[in-house]
Amino acid sequence: MARVIVDVMPKPEILDPQGKAVTGALARLGFSGLSVRQGKRFEIEVDGEVTDERLGQISHAAETLLANTVIETFQVRVDS
Amino acid sequence: MARVIVDVMPKPEILDPQGKAVTGALARLGFSGLSVRQGKRFEIEVDGEVTDERLGQISHAAETLLANTVIETFQVRVDS
Repeated sequence: MARVIVDVMPKPEILDPQGKAVTGALARLGFSGLSVRQGKRFEIEVDGEVTDERLGQISHAAETLLANTVIETFQVRVDS
Repeated sequence: MARVIVDVMPKPEILDPQGKAVTGALARLGFSGLSVRQGKRFEIEVDGEVTDERLGQISHAAETLLANTVIETFQVRVDS
């Protein structure tokens, strides 16, 4: 069983209210000098080998279902 | 400016309804043989150097604010 990781993050130019809230909460708790952006992480267990074709399918799935590419970027990688 | 990544995932024994929904949606779209778990990814920009002390602070922040350690595991690493 192989595992593929898809990371989805808000684009840099897009407002990130969740990240802003976390940044503010950290500052109030005394953790200063930190700036947080919040995104999503998907761990995908794949039946069988992760071939290039399979990875292409997963990239396509990430683009169409996991990320909203208008406001988010995504990265697909095989977990080592 | 250095960057630290915190990954937060539901523990394996915990139900993950979001992941289940994504798994089902992928299957309906024709992407079969995939099992998805969904978590969160935080990208933290740190002012100045990431010293061991600073990284310890961020781990503490992750444990208290970013992850609910009853149901989630977290991983802190410096982005290379």
